[in-house]
Order: sequence, then C-alpha cells, then structure tokens
Amino acid sequence: MSLIVQKYGGSSVADAESIRRVAKRIIDTKRAGNDVVVTVSAMGDTTDELIDLAHEITPIPDPREFDMLVTTGERISMALLAMAIKSMGYDARSYTGSQAGMLTTSNHGDARIVDVTPGRIRTALDEGAIAIVAGFQGVSPDTKDITTLGRGGSDTTAVALAAALGADKCEIYTDVDGVFTADPRIVPKARKIDALSSEETLELAASGAKVLHIRAVEYARRQGVTLVVRSSFTNDPGTIVYHPDRAEEFPVEEATIAGVAHDLSQAKITVVGVPDVPGSAAAIFGLVAEQGANIDMIVQNVQTQNDGVTDISFTLPKAYADAVTRAIEGAHERLGYEQLRLDDQIGKVSLVGAGMRSNIGVSSTLFEALRDAGINIDMISTSEIRISIVTRADLVPDAARAIHAAFGLDGESEAVVYAGTGR
Amino acid sequence: MSLIVQKYGGSSVADAESIRRVAKRIIDTKRAGNDVVVTVSAMGDTTDELIDLAHEITPIPDPREFDMLVTTGERISMALLAMAIKSMGYDARSYTGSQAGMLTTSNHGDARIVDVTPGRIRTALDEGAIAIVAGFQGVSPDTKDITTLGRGGSDTTAVALAAALGADKCEIYTDVDGVFTADPRIVPKARKIDALSSEETLELAASGAKVLHIRAVEYARRQGVTLVVRSSFTNDPGTIVYHPDRAEEFPVEEATIAGVAHDLSQAKITVVGVPDVPGSAAAIFGLVAEQGANIDMIVQNVQTQNDGVTDISFTLPKAYADAVTRAIEGAHERLGYEQLRLDDQIGKVSLVGAGMRSNIGVSSTLFEALRDAGINIDMISTSEIRISIVTRADLVPDAARAIHAAFGLDGESEAVVYAGTGR
Repeated sequence: MSLIVQKYGGSSVADAESIRRVAKRIIDTKRAGNDVVVTVSAMGDTTDELIDLAHEITPIPDPREFDMLVTTGERISMALLAMAIKSMGYDARSYTGSQAGMLTTSNHGDARIVDVTPGRIRTALDEGAIAIVAGFQGVSPDTKDITTLGRGGSDTTAVALAAALGADKCEIYTDVDGVFTADPRIVPKARKIDALSSEETLELAASGAKVLHIRAVEYARRQGVTLVVRSSFTNDPGTIVYHPDRAEEFPVEEATIAGVAHDLSQAKITVVGVPDVPGSAAAIFGLVAEQGANIDMIVQNVQTQNDGVTDISFTLPKAYADAVTRAIEGAHERLGYEQLRLDDQIGKVSLVGAGMRSNIGVSSTLFEALRDAGINIDMISTSEIRISIVTRADLVPDAARAIHAAFGLDGESEAVVYAGTGR
Repeated sequence: MSLIVQKYGGSSVADAESIRRVAKRIIDTKRAGNDVVVTVSAMGDTTDELIDLAHEITPIPDPREFDMLVTTGERISMALLAMAIKSMGYDARSYTGSQAGMLTTSNHGDARIVDVTPGRIRTALDEGAIAIVAGFQGVSPDTKDITTLGRGGSDTTAVALAAALGADKCEIYTDVDGVFTADPRIVPKARKIDALSSEETLELAASGAKVLHIRAVEYARRQGVTLVVRSSFTNDPGTIVYHPDRAEEFPVEEATIAGVAHDLSQAKITVVGVPDVPGSAAAIFGLVAEQGANIDMIVQNVQTQNDGVTDISFTLPKAYADAVTRAIEGAHERLGYEQLRLDDQIGKVSLVGAGMRSNIGVSSTLFEALRDAGINIDMISTSEIRISIVTRADLVPDAARAIHAAFGLDGESEAVVYAGTGR
C-alpha cells in the first residue's frame, strides 16, 4: 500500500466550499488504496489577519506569543478539513505540529526542523484513518513552546512528514497545473513540465520562478522525497520533481532545457572607478552585508587598460537598493570610487536545464535568440545548469519568449492562465 | 505574597483596545505585590463565529474536531493579552489548557475537570511572570485530545486554577459591578451586594439570576475558593462570594435576605384530572424525562374531594414545552387524564437569603407585599434559603419590586445599568 502526503495551501481551503472540495479529493486518494497524510495551511488570508490583530496590540509583538497566535490559523483549517472528511463517511483526525512530532529549534518565527517523530500519525494510519496535520508549525523540545517555521514552512512541513514516514510521494497542491516551462503570464506558449529534477527546480526557483519554496525542494532533495506539484482545481497529474539520481525512473524524454525563469524584483548598483587593489571588493560588499541585503549577481569588469581602477556591478533586491546606495555613498572617501550608479529598471531572465552540462552550443543558441530579438545584454552569470542574463525590465517578456521559442519549449496552444501567482 | 486568579470574559476582551485596558488592570494587580494568573475567554463573538464556520462544513461536526476548532478562540485572546502585557514592560506567558495542566474527562464539548497540575504556571510565577491561561479547555490524559468544558467552563477554569494553586481569591470580571440584590433592569433600586455566601449565590443563580455559573460557584464552594465578582470597566471592589463556613471573616452586616431573582424562561404545564393512584406522577414525569427536559417546580394539588383524581402542575424551560405537551397528548389514553393545559406566560420570582433559616416571618412579609401589590400567586415552592412564587409574566417586574422594597433591599438611588446581561 502506498503512502501519500498531500499539502494544500491557503487558497485551496479559502472557504467552506473549497474545504469540502479538498475533502473529496483526499477521500478519492484514500479510496484508490493509499494511506493519506495531509498538511494544510490557514484558510485564505487568515494568517495576515492574525498578524494585523497582533499589530493592533503592539508594533513589536513578543515572538513566543506571536507564534502562539498565528498557529491558530492552521488549527482552524485542519479541524474543519477533518470534520468535512468525517461528515463524508471516512475517518480523519487532525493534529497540531506538536502532536505530529514536528520538533524544531526554538527561534520563534523562523524555526528549523531538527527531528520528526510522527508516532501518533503512524498509529492513525494503522487504524485506517486519514491524518490531517497543521502546517507551518512545530514545538521546541527545549522550551516546550509552539514555534512557526518561517518562509516556505508549509511546504517544508509536508516534505518533512513525507521523509519521516517514508512516503512514496509528496503532492504539493496549488492553484496552477504544475511547474511551467515559463511564467504563462509573460510567455503565453509556456507548457506544463511533466517531470524535472530537484536541482533544476532549485535553479528555477532561485531565478525567480514562483512554484515551490527553495527550502522545501532542498529538504526533498536531501531526504530523497519525490515531489509532485499539481492543481487542487483540476485533475492534471501535475509536475514530478525527482531526485537527480533517480532520473531514469521517470519516463520523460531527456530534455536539455527545463525552462525559463524571470525576475523583476532586483536593482543593479554599479561602483565606477574602484581602485583595482586587494580589498576594494571586500570593503564594498562588507557594507552591503551590514545592510542585510542578499546579493545575487556580481560582475567585476575585466581590466583592459592599466589605469589602476575597475568597475564593479552587482544586483540585489529592490527593497534594499536605497539603503545600500546610501551606505556606499556614506563611505565614498574611504572606498575611493569615482561614481555610483543605481538602476532599478532591470530584469533578469534565466535558462535552466540539466542537459546544459553535456550539450555544447546552449550559450550560442541563447545569445543568437536574443540578438535576433534585438535585446541588449547588460550582465551575464552562469552555473552548471543555468545561464542568466540581465537586460532592461521592459524587455524581459520579449527576451523570455525569444529564448523559450529558440529552445523548442513552445506549446501548440496558449497555456491556460489561472488567477494566482502560481505559488 | 498573595496569589490572585482573574478571569476575563469575552466582552472584556472584545477588541484590541479592551485587551490593552485589561492588560493595564492585570499589571496594576501585579504592581500591588501579587502573583497573578489570568484565564481568558475568546474575544467577543469569536466562539459563535467558529461554531458557524463548523456548521457551514456539516450540520453535525465531529466532536473531537469541534473542540480542536473552538479552542482556537481562547488561544488567540490569550496570546494577544500576553503580548499586550509584555509590550507594557512586564513578563507574561500564555498557556493552553493542556500546557496549564487542566486534565479532563474525554467527553468532547462537555468535559469535566478530573485534576489540575499547574506545574508550568507555578514555575512562571516563581520567575516573576504573569501567567495567562486559555479558559474553557483542557486535555484528556486518556486520549491526549483537546477538550472543551461546556457551560460555565470559563468561570470553572478560573476557579479550578485558584483551587489548585491555593489562590487567596478568584476574581471573575464581567460587565457589571457585581452581584446585585435584583436585576437592575426590572428593579431600578437594586443595590450591589458587598458579600454573600456561595450557597445564597447558588440559589440566586438557580432561580434565574445571571452572574456566575452554578458550576463554578459549586466548584468554589467544594474547594473553599473565595470568589469576587467585579466589573472590568470600573474600580468598584465588587461582590465577595464566601464559603458559608467562613461567614465571620467578612465584615458585612448579617443580612437576612441576599436578593430577589426572576426567571422568565419557563412555561407551566398542568395535567388536570389525573387518576389519584400510585404511578400516575411517575408515568407523566417519565415522559418528560424522555424529552430531555429539566423540571423546575412541581405542585400536586392536595386532595380535598374524594373523587379519585388530582391535578399536577410543573414548570420547565419554554424550549421544551411543545415537545413535552405533544408527548403527553400522545399518551392521553394510557395516562388517563381529563385535560392538558400549557401556559407559556408565566414568570417566577424568588427570594433568597441564608437568614431565612433562623428568621420567622419571612413568608408572611413576602405574601403581604404581593397582596398589597395586587399580585396573584399561581404556584409556590421553597427550599431552606429560598421562597419562589410563580405569577403572570407581565407582573414579574411589579412582584420583584414589591418584594425588594418589603425586605429593605432598596438602594437610595437607582442602580446604574450597564449594557450586557450581567453574565
């Protein structure tokens, strides 16, 4: 008998009707002969509403109490979901993160999972019941306090349970059919991908694609859990995310390229005329780190003239651009640069594919496609299975479409676009 | 150092502003040199909203999941209250019923407290923190499931904690100044009572007065906990409810009469011409019990003629009147009565006072007052410290006022009436 873990996000359980629809889907999975464990997020905007309530009390809520408060959202949805399943004739029981054995560090708001001991879940399954577990939360064995898991916590809960229970697969339900070869909203001919490796998924997610949290994919990769991303609104089988070592198990054609991601959330800062001596880069990036900004791409111009200076460009989230700019300006004399430029109208487009390792000519195909589309390239960065280019933000759709077509990713018809961010 | 337990109901924590006001009051109690433990209900109408949500899913929610759902209300308010206190500079920690050691039976929705082991609360107090506990809930040590305590559960949580911690007193905060000598809305000259015994409070509550739940008062009486009923909106010291054995500790004048309660929730059924043989009453009340109705007063007419029949009247909650009437009619032939009458326009007025035991003349003063007010008495029932009369519902205000005045309970001025039911 196979064991399936399913995760349903807030938009899938936004109201009573959605909850009943999800309950039917869970029952269908059970009736097909599987053991089923479900993790669920809070209904709709409940978490945001609870956070607002906390901020009506105080601008800086105590972390322990904040976690106690926001975890009620998942408790509400899990109890309602279990109620719905029971009313349809199947046994179901809900469990808090603590009851499910989700043990974490004690950093409230950003706890890490240290162990999963799902004894009560296992017992429920042995008794033929469906187990519903509150996502996004756990308990710290040190303090015995309830904790929340931070960004990507709900997906990670599902993957962690799947790993601990030895599940055959972990299905992440969302409001789109799966992982697409590009964002259908800017590349209408994007197609749903049948299967891709977790390392490709990680690169896509890191490059701006919004389907799975990096954290959850990373956990799945480390623990060998097979993920499936699918829609809770249709019967499409979704996208399988497999461990690279298990690529042969999945009967898909060897695809060179998995997909095209884009990212419009970054800005570029260029420090012009930096003294070309050891320590210059360290001084600049030390300042950036002090501001708490994560840097994405760095390009230091290759020196062509022996004039003792160079230019350094880097990209970072737009939200940090002003603070970092001011910090660098504040250290102008110490850093000794000539000029500082901020460009917040950039966009990044990335091509991702495991096949890049063994295929020659990917770069030339990419650059030819961009040339033919009249798109100028501002910055380039690469990894083993990814090539990213930075161009003007308003050219990102054209660039993405050109690359998508050049690599044979276009579908026959336009993809159906659902409301939602594809999260 | 004294230890005080405080309970705040839903209307006292209805919104962020109220929560902050309650937080200040708790801090004032702490600053006065006390250890403070607080139990809190869900904000405003939250519990009703959660129940409605459950009924959107199914008309008959699974009991285990229902308890998991509704207990989130108290978790939300306790976390917000702890947050508010911390933001004002004092240490506070919230605890679920389970974390506070509230152990119960496993009947979901109506669990009884079997033990209270508040180890973590004691530790928090020793570390100088204020402990906030979710009311109305506990955990069953058998099933490890979360349970709710049914009617009066929030007040009972507070009393149970006070007993287990050996608190000096348990303050129940509500939206009126305390227990009154009568409902100020029908007896404007009602006064706040400074102190009365728990047995008098029990009789008043059982007779219709809406201040404390019988269950909580009974628990306090058995465990020797001193209760104080007071307003969360004013500084009035409230009403002390003491154990009868400790009456001398409370410097109040020996009052013969505590107060006057009224009850408009009942109906009267009269079975006329019942065969006056053994078993007649049993047959009738067996039917009533089958309908699940609780009977309040019973009067069987004293036989004056030797005609072999008698009349039996009884009162019960209006909500059961129709079903019981139909049940009796359905058994007309078997019961062999002549006529069945239903009167849903009755009202009951009760006079309660420990001094009744030793004071002669209470009955005559009562009946003279009603006679002078032109009020006809329909039924009479008595206990050691209570006399109740049934009359027409529309005469209840006049009756209550007449009795109140006749026993010297009237205050100098009219009582201030707050919004709320005085619960």
